[in-house]
Amino acid sequence: MFQKAAVLVAGSWGTALASVLADKGIQVSLWTRNSGQAEEINRDHQNRYLPGVTLSSNIIATTDMEEAVKGAEAIVIVSPSSAARQVSKELSKHWRPEQLVIHAVKGFETETLKRMSTVISEELGCEEGRIVVLSGPSHAEEVVKQCPTTVVVASLEEQEAQRAQDLFMNTYFRVYTNRDQVGVELAGALKNIIALGAGMSDGLGYGDNAKAALLTRGLAEITRVGAQMGANPLTFAGLAGVGDLVVTATSQHSRNWRAGSMLGQGMTLDEVLKKMDMVVEGIRTTQAAHEIAEKYKVQMPIASQLYNVLFKGLDARTAVEALMGRDKKTEMEVMSLETWEQWHT
Amino acid sequence: MFQKAAVLVAGSWGTALASVLADKGIQVSLWTRNSGQAEEINRDHQNRYLPGVTLSSNIIATTDMEEAVKGAEAIVIVSPSSAARQVSKELSKHWRPEQLVIHAVKGFETETLKRMSTVISEELGCEEGRIVVLSGPSHAEEVVKQCPTTVVVASLEEQEAQRAQDLFMNTYFRVYTNRDQVGVELAGALKNIIALGAGMSDGLGYGDNAKAALLTRGLAEITRVGAQMGANPLTFAGLAGVGDLVVTATSQHSRNWRAGSMLGQGMTLDEVLKKMDMVVEGIRTTQAAHEIAEKYKVQMPIASQLYNVLFKGLDARTAVEALMGRDKKTEMEVMSLETWEQWHT
Repeated sequence: MFQKAAVLVAGSWGTALASVLADKGIQVSLWTRNSGQAEEINRDHQNRYLPGVTLSSNIIATTDMEEAVKGAEAIVIVSPSSAARQVSKELSKHWRPEQLVIHAVKGFETETLKRMSTVISEELGCEEGRIVVLSGPSHAEEVVKQCPTTVVVASLEEQEAQRAQDLFMNTYFRVYTNRDQVGVELAGALKNIIALGAGMSDGLGYGDNAKAALLTRGLAEITRVGAQMGANPLTFAGLAGVGDLVVTATSQHSRNWRAGSMLGQGMTLDEVLKKMDMVVEGIRTTQAAHEIAEKYKVQMPIASQLYNVLFKGLDARTAVEALMGRDKKTEMEVMSLETWEQWHT
Repeated sequence: MFQKAAVLVAGSWGTALASVLADKGIQVSLWTRNSGQAEEINRDHQNRYLPGVTLSSNIIATTDMEEAVKGAEAIVIVSPSSAARQVSKELSKHWRPEQLVIHAVKGFETETLKRMSTVISEELGCEEGRIVVLSGPSHAEEVVKQCPTTVVVASLEEQEAQRAQDLFMNTYFRVYTNRDQVGVELAGALKNIIALGAGMSDGLGYGDNAKAALLTRGLAEITRVGAQMGANPLTFAGLAGVGDLVVTATSQHSRNWRAGSMLGQGMTLDEVLKKMDMVVEGIRTTQAAHEIAEKYKVQMPIASQLYNVLFKGLDARTAVEALMGRDKKTEMEVMSLETWEQWHT
């Protein structure tokens, strides 16, 4: 039984996960660096990133990480990917090895191309395999309204994943386990690139048929790369892959879709970033993917075209038209997974 | 080079495929039993099922199948699944073996559980493997507006699929080949069940997270069944599977989604059928799937719940809640494909 959990930090997704726990009667310390935001949460039971939602009184915000972490059986890291190393470094001063560590961060450390559980475990000085990653199709805006939601938790250490499942599972929040920590982590990060692309296609006014084509080829692309990096391809057909891709690429709630849509309408990256008030992970992830494609020598045609739009000034229409290119192909060329056998023999 | 093609019959999708060919300069005979509709098309260049669209003058409607088929290098069957045997029987009187046969019918023959290329080849007296199936994410409403669209054509006989690719490929209509005729056919038919379920979830007001979960589990379900029936599981990750599922389940254009949505809002099947003016393939396919699950001894939890809603008066909310059941599972139990090895060793 869990009595207390700490959630770092108080963005929209962190706050939604805090609500899932609070609804089960768990005391949640919600950590933020921003004292104004902490005051708002404690005084008004409102979070500026989830306007109109009244938070449970089981959620107490604090700017003191030691206080947040003390006595918690579980710690949930939900920072932007760019802040994950710093947050983990601070956590390492207070963390004790019996505390369960879960993260729900979708992205890479851009400078090193490391996955988030690598980054977190390096700072905590523990085995990477014991960090649990939580991912899946889950808009924060729906979770706080108790809409039915499913997610997957993955860890190389099965009992850590099961502890995370016990922690979060409630009547509206259904949690599956998976041992493919790498795959769940990669799917969650890489799918944001495809969501950006889908938004761009919509912004250009290309329609549902074109978007579905982009999602299908995008899924094949990130599955191929994931397999190359050690993931089980089947994980990309699950909640962290297809599921999250669908919800991110077809919903107005999604920041990645919205950013892509603005790019499709002809805005520059600078203009888009000014318009968005929150982090758009897909932008950083596209940059990382560009380097991953070189490092692992894999083709990432969609990510490459997006990279050119974001960072090289390529026109969005030219990029999407290049992806719709004219040469005749068999579908299995696009789908083929050279490393499939290592998982299925 | 193709000079003339016949399209049987003049529904919305048949007319859209006729437009793709007409835009390439091919003369298209569009066959319909309805002389009033044929007159409208020839006089006004309008089809009642695609209001507001002006059709190419290369499309000539006729009620005379002999005239439609005579001199055509290719024949495209796009009837409702319930009419495919009768249309093929009539075609057999005029068809000559050098004529390419393509079908874009999504469903089973309910009485026999046979796939469409089985039904068509039986009536034509040819090898099943030479029938080409065309499928993929493709709303007729977008195709006639020349929105970028991708589809897959599949046949056991590779050169037949390549002929179909040459026939249809144009600047906005991109055609991939695949040799997995069975998989493309099954994916196209079975995905309509999941689209119905997604509509039902939306009709109940459950939100994007729940729908994404349903799509993910639904995809795993139809992949498992497809593999059991001889399909390559990977085909379900392609255009005819994921691609078509996304476009069908997330778009208002889709009849299956709309029918499901009305069921979710509490209408009975009779009321829904009265409201819809066109065939809803997913309803017949759910019935077929119910029998397929028994025959092949596979679990189809989503199809079973939908069957109970459609034909046994089960309340939609109870059905969806049963699917969100409470037992704790690993994701790979849901995803596992016992027959994977036969394709990937």
